[in-house]
Amino acid sequence: MGGEGEAMLITQMSQQESRALLAGLGYGKLACARENHPYIVPIFFAYEDNRIFCFSTLGQKIEWMRANPRVCVQADEVRSYMEWKSVIVLGRYEELPDDEPHRKTRSHAITLLFSQRYRWWQGAYATDRLRGRAGEPIPVVFSVTIEEITGHRAQPDPAELADPPASGNPGK
Amino acid sequence: MGGEGEAMLITQMSQQESRALLAGLGYGKLACARENHPYIVPIFFAYEDNRIFCFSTLGQKIEWMRANPRVCVQADEVRSYMEWKSVIVLGRYEELPDDEPHRKTRSHAITLLFSQRYRWWQGAYATDRLRGRAGEPIPVVFSVTIEEITGHRAQPDPAELADPPASGNPGK
Repeated sequence: MGGEGEAMLITQMSQQESRALLAGLGYGKLACARENHPYIVPIFFAYEDNRIFCFSTLGQKIEWMRANPRVCVQADEVRSYMEWKSVIVLGRYEELPDDEPHRKTRSHAITLLFSQRYRWWQGAYATDRLRGRAGEPIPVVFSVTIEEITGHRAQPDPAELADPPASGNPGK
Repeated sequence: MGGEGEAMLITQMSQQESRALLAGLGYGKLACARENHPYIVPIFFAYEDNRIFCFSTLGQKIEWMRANPRVCVQADEVRSYMEWKSVIVLGRYEELPDDEPHRKTRSHAITLLFSQRYRWWQGAYATDRLRGRAGEPIPVVFSVTIEEITGHRAQPDPAELADPPASGNPGK
């Protein structure tokens, strides 16, 4: 590479660090898939006890996740090309409708989401109005249960400047 | 909602605006899917002529996209909860191997990527070393041809403060 001589070291984060990053960020991307077509949407969420809680108005992503509950959530904190943390979750969508078996969890999720970042609601409602639906918006509350979580951290690695890898010139 | 009385307006961006945003950002998320399991990775890219060009070392996402070329790319510019732009691309993965039919496009893609943001290469190589592969890293160059692109913009909407929507209290 030559040039500025920068190098970075990527290391795997522990489960605990990955969960802490996820909880602290509360904002990321969710991917779902229908008939092998992937689709990404930005989400806000609250993390608690191996689950994330989200809120949405009815729309394509909800319809897709009802049909296929396998989802992937990614969140990151990027300071520079050389310094970032990123976490990827594989998980399972579960809707929390306003019925007896789910009422308590739904109410808890709404409280968590609402108290942490109440502006999200406005975003979701603005989107709903954009779509031109009549009457009351329909809030969908759901959780994603974490089945697998992995995190990586990149940081500048001064040691590598002194001992460059023998992997040749990637510019070729 | 009450409280701060903020409101935002979400509007659809034109095709031209969406493409300009994508080209200007050069950084986003890519989702692929295998057997209806979605997977997200952060990517850097260069945009040109209805395609984005990317670079990666061999890994899970490449294996998945070889098996299923349908991908989704999302990129955004977030200034605040109330002010952001987001673009979503549905597209098709095409690998640009170092063979005769692809050599010219591959070389052009590498030049574009390398000249715009050469540090990406270092990131990809660091990841490769992390994985503990022996010998030379294998760079995979690929394009995503855009089949559908949509963009949305949110901005504070002072007009809504004077005339709040009659949709009730979403906190309930």
